[in-house]
Amino acid sequence: MTAPLDLTADPVELTAALVDLPSVSGAERALADAVEAALRAQAPHLEVLRNGDAVLARTALGRESRVVLAGHLDTVPVNDNLPLRRTGSGVDEVLHGCGTVDMKGGDAVLLSTAAALTDPRHDLTFVFYDCEEVEAERNGLTRIEREIPEWLDGDLAVVGEPSNAAVEAGCQGTLRVEVRTTGVRAHTARAWMGDNAIHAAEPVLRRLADYRPRQPVIDGLQYHEGLQAVRISGGVAGNVVPDSCVVTVNHRFAPDRSLAEAEAHVREVFDGFEVVAVDRSAGALPGLTAPAAAELVAASGAEPVAKLGWTDVARFAARGMAAVNFGPGDPALAHTQQENVRAADIRRCAEVLHRFLS
Amino acid sequence: MTAPLDLTADPVELTAALVDLPSVSGAERALADAVEAALRAQAPHLEVLRNGDAVLARTALGRESRVVLAGHLDTVPVNDNLPLRRTGSGVDEVLHGCGTVDMKGGDAVLLSTAAALTDPRHDLTFVFYDCEEVEAERNGLTRIEREIPEWLDGDLAVVGEPSNAAVEAGCQGTLRVEVRTTGVRAHTARAWMGDNAIHAAEPVLRRLADYRPRQPVIDGLQYHEGLQAVRISGGVAGNVVPDSCVVTVNHRFAPDRSLAEAEAHVREVFDGFEVVAVDRSAGALPGLTAPAAAELVAASGAEPVAKLGWTDVARFAARGMAAVNFGPGDPALAHTQQENVRAADIRRCAEVLHRFLS
Repeated sequence: MTAPLDLTADPVELTAALVDLPSVSGAERALADAVEAALRAQAPHLEVLRNGDAVLARTALGRESRVVLAGHLDTVPVNDNLPLRRTGSGVDEVLHGCGTVDMKGGDAVLLSTAAALTDPRHDLTFVFYDCEEVEAERNGLTRIEREIPEWLDGDLAVVGEPSNAAVEAGCQGTLRVEVRTTGVRAHTARAWMGDNAIHAAEPVLRRLADYRPRQPVIDGLQYHEGLQAVRISGGVAGNVVPDSCVVTVNHRFAPDRSLAEAEAHVREVFDGFEVVAVDRSAGALPGLTAPAAAELVAASGAEPVAKLGWTDVARFAARGMAAVNFGPGDPALAHTQQENVRAADIRRCAEVLHRFLS
Repeated sequence: MTAPLDLTADPVELTAALVDLPSVSGAERALADAVEAALRAQAPHLEVLRNGDAVLARTALGRESRVVLAGHLDTVPVNDNLPLRRTGSGVDEVLHGCGTVDMKGGDAVLLSTAAALTDPRHDLTFVFYDCEEVEAERNGLTRIEREIPEWLDGDLAVVGEPSNAAVEAGCQGTLRVEVRTTGVRAHTARAWMGDNAIHAAEPVLRRLADYRPRQPVIDGLQYHEGLQAVRISGGVAGNVVPDSCVVTVNHRFAPDRSLAEAEAHVREVFDGFEVVAVDRSAGALPGLTAPAAAELVAASGAEPVAKLGWTDVARFAARGMAAVNFGPGDPALAHTQQENVRAADIRRCAEVLHRFLS
């Protein structure tokens, strides 16, 4: 048995307690148990529901609008970076270790908010879920949306992913395609009898190297697209002219383009080549004109910025909700061994959420 | 126990007997045993030596020159193409099955010659060896050259690889290099923070696509070089700008260039890129001016042609000997499931060798 989580503690201390309950994707049960027990004991104003290794909790105050606050409980694999280490003190205190930035700091902020705000101005739904760091099919939100979709409904979703304690609005979409070239096999000693599919991929790489991505401004936020080869493979044997080559390309596109528009654009770039889409996720428009979103931006006291990476905000946006990322820590540190979060960021996020929701 | 091999039979029947003794690389023992027993019993004029799964035999007649005749006993893996099948009859008879063309037809010609020619005009050394179809380190000739190199010495080497019953002279060299590009990893959502190593490989593919190979004529034989990508690989994950890409390139070069010259040429083609040589085998000059080689060409009654693929002739050429390929069958059928050899080719090769050596 581990010590119970104290949701009324300083959210920095709550972060530390969460980090020291390891919860690599697929092994979140102990942490989910602790979160469920703490919410049932320390947030009696909430209806609590367990779903797999996700824990959900909500108010039913009859408010005019509802805010959904979501955080995943899992982390990428531990990389010799547990237990938690602390450096500095006071405003310079930093928590180091697996999950500090992605995203147990954000979970602590949400849990603290769940316990503290017994009379929020919006109805609230909290979603602490499993398996965000692995394939979409295993993502707890996929299961929740299939089994109990009403628990995801609301007017604004706040996903507590690290965003440097600023509101990161919307997110770019992502599309992966395979661009394929074909040829004719032959022995390399008689190469003229074949047709080299790797050589035939040269124009694909040239178009990638020459590509100039759009940087559109949407609702005042600057996005930055990208078109990048993420994998290339071809070859049969060391003495064979290869008859096949595949370049896997990842297109990140601003949310003013639909998935279909983005795919059409990529097909146009690689006109003349066989293009097969293998993975696609729509972006999410910033949605900052929604009243609750505008209130959060105001409470944050900082300029909102565009979210460039894809996050689960897009799942909420696809449900017709405004959806933003808001959480402590630098997203660039996520998934690194040096992952860390400033204690001041955690406290600031908790204060902003309390101000926004009180 | 299998029936003993009859070295005095029609070499077509001897081929059939050899084919029906399967001998995939590493599993040549039964065939080597049969060859050794047959030579000891039916070629008492030869000194016979067993070395691993190789069998060697030679005359010691004090002739002014020595011809080394070599054939490998192993085959590529059986591919649902044993036992032997026959089609046609008379001059149209064809033997089908694993090893028919590569190279038990050639082995039968050499074994028949070994038993029949008790008083040859040159001293003769026969080398029936193992593991030619796998990596060079396992090749029986590598072991023989290390342990009993004097058994490979002579004035001319005739390797019985399929050559359409014509003399294929010399062989092209082969060099494999890895051309590497590097970059900087980044998340594809912030691609401008990285540097894509796959995009950076575009000039490598362009130079390959634009390359015009030499087709030099040497000793009247036309060679045809090649520079071909045989493998390309790069990529970290579906959302990461890759920091490494490797293009493996196979250069086939005519034997008027040394290995060092060929490598310098390839480095010049890929000037500005990191080039690492991973595999290299020198070519072999045709050597048709050697008296014994000229005699074989005359006996064959056909124009010699250039050998474009690399074969073990290069090992003999490296020892300072003239070395040619001469054997029944079409080399383009080697390693295919449809492998087959014309009976007439086998008989013709045996007749040519007898004429040459009588």
